[in-house]
Amino acid sequence: MVGTEDERPRILADSARPTPTTGADDVVAALVASTRAALDEAGRTLRDIAAVGCSAPGPLDHERGVVHVAPNIPGFENVPLAARLAAGLDGVPVFVDRDTIIAAIGEGAVGAARGVRDFVYVTVSTGVGGGIVAGGRIVRGATNTAGEIGHWPVALDGPPCGCGSFGCVEAFAGGHSLAERYGARDAGDVFRAADEGDERARGLVAGLESAMEALAVGLVNVLNPSLIVVGGGIAEHEPRHVLDPMRRGARERAFAVASAAVRIVPAALGADVGMIGAVVTARQRAAGRDPLSV
Amino acid sequence: MVGTEDERPRILADSARPTPTTGADDVVAALVASTRAALDEAGRTLRDIAAVGCSAPGPLDHERGVVHVAPNIPGFENVPLAARLAAGLDGVPVFVDRDTIIAAIGEGAVGAARGVRDFVYVTVSTGVGGGIVAGGRIVRGATNTAGEIGHWPVALDGPPCGCGSFGCVEAFAGGHSLAERYGARDAGDVFRAADEGDERARGLVAGLESAMEALAVGLVNVLNPSLIVVGGGIAEHEPRHVLDPMRRGARERAFAVASAAVRIVPAALGADVGMIGAVVTARQRAAGRDPLSV
Repeated sequence: MVGTEDERPRILADSARPTPTTGADDVVAALVASTRAALDEAGRTLRDIAAVGCSAPGPLDHERGVVHVAPNIPGFENVPLAARLAAGLDGVPVFVDRDTIIAAIGEGAVGAARGVRDFVYVTVSTGVGGGIVAGGRIVRGATNTAGEIGHWPVALDGPPCGCGSFGCVEAFAGGHSLAERYGARDAGDVFRAADEGDERARGLVAGLESAMEALAVGLVNVLNPSLIVVGGGIAEHEPRHVLDPMRRGARERAFAVASAAVRIVPAALGADVGMIGAVVTARQRAAGRDPLSV
Repeated sequence: MVGTEDERPRILADSARPTPTTGADDVVAALVASTRAALDEAGRTLRDIAAVGCSAPGPLDHERGVVHVAPNIPGFENVPLAARLAAGLDGVPVFVDRDTIIAAIGEGAVGAARGVRDFVYVTVSTGVGGGIVAGGRIVRGATNTAGEIGHWPVALDGPPCGCGSFGCVEAFAGGHSLAERYGARDAGDVFRAADEGDERARGLVAGLESAMEALAVGLVNVLNPSLIVVGGGIAEHEPRHVLDPMRRGARERAFAVASAAVRIVPAALGADVGMIGAVVTARQRAAGRDPLSV
């Protein structure tokens, strides 16, 4: 739960609980319960709330607030999440958007990309995703799935990707994929093993670096942003394996004019990016504005 | 030279001559001479002309009409092409844009992407390039080089690309690169050799197909267009090696929601796309409008 008194929203309280795996009804109920618990903690009621922002996994229709499918939640298909949440929150308007778009909005409105008209937000975490802003507007695409930059192929054959394709950036650089390919519990184990000289781990980390380098070359050549903002747990904890190769790629391999125009920087909002971006989204959309009006 | 009486511009006359390799002054003089020759042929004078559109290789500043550098023309650097041409054409306003953007404008205004708000124009010719339209607007990027989709890496190592990088789509699929890698005069020889069963040519053509498949997967996932328009000589003459793998990639490997939203079609304007796009550009910009107002 976040206050809106300042330009950069301030977190007054939060309430988290595990995502139920028992279907959409239970997920909606848990979200409503968390929202009410955070309000209680902050000493507020729903009457104090003008609008609610909700960051959700995609693909989804942000205008109607309908999640087409949430692959990690069994039975979560074509859920009118905004309407269901509003119903559980005494009719307060709820604005839903994709998690990576919400993050791009947060970084663009009050974070590392504040005031920047052409930028790409990249998250390197268990998966790899992003959001694209061109000419001050979010690139939505035809059905609001634009920005899935983790699923640009950077290799003409394997490795297989969780999305069903192969050679995706995420297959090389996503934490889940890295851990699975190594046979470790999480990606941290792979980086530790690489640091200790394990050859197989070093090979996987080198693959991640090559994929991030290629991603940066591609983003700079294809989108010509003035800024690439890189967030997510792996980017935060392993910048030399993520930001360094991205900067090297942009500097050494991208077109000169585009390369000279771009900076590649860490995200500014850290783990709060979802909450802050959701508040900016709710505030802007409740006022009838685009979430990003740069 | 193109008339503007109809919505789809009609070509009344044309005049082509080899591009001088002796510097910017001679190139400008040749362009002026061609323009005047086409006017003569059409029985018109410069007084009949409201505006001139010019398709130029990039990178360039379309607003100021300055070409930063034209790599294939020695000494063509930081040339104020719009102003130089206007000076040679009795002051008629001249509007310059990048060749692939001009092509996207032509296809978007009166060609295969007419009325489409989210599309990508792809050209597969001696090189591979493109233009991106998102939400009805051309994606320019920070310095107007966005859309260089031929230089997204689709392989983590070679082949080397003419741009100085490696693994680019163009390194696999550009006609110049194909011919050079095979040791042939032009790409047509490579396709012929492949058809005759030559193993090395077949390998190169398979690489082109894989790169085009990967490009389509990436474009659909990253930009979520409702249409991909594919032009250029190689796409036109070898659709089964270009459009077929693109369609297969979009259908079999891209995200379901984005895949269902996209069609991949041949360009409609053929070799005239540059002239038609230039006229649309001149007409719109002379009226103070965006060249694409979808």
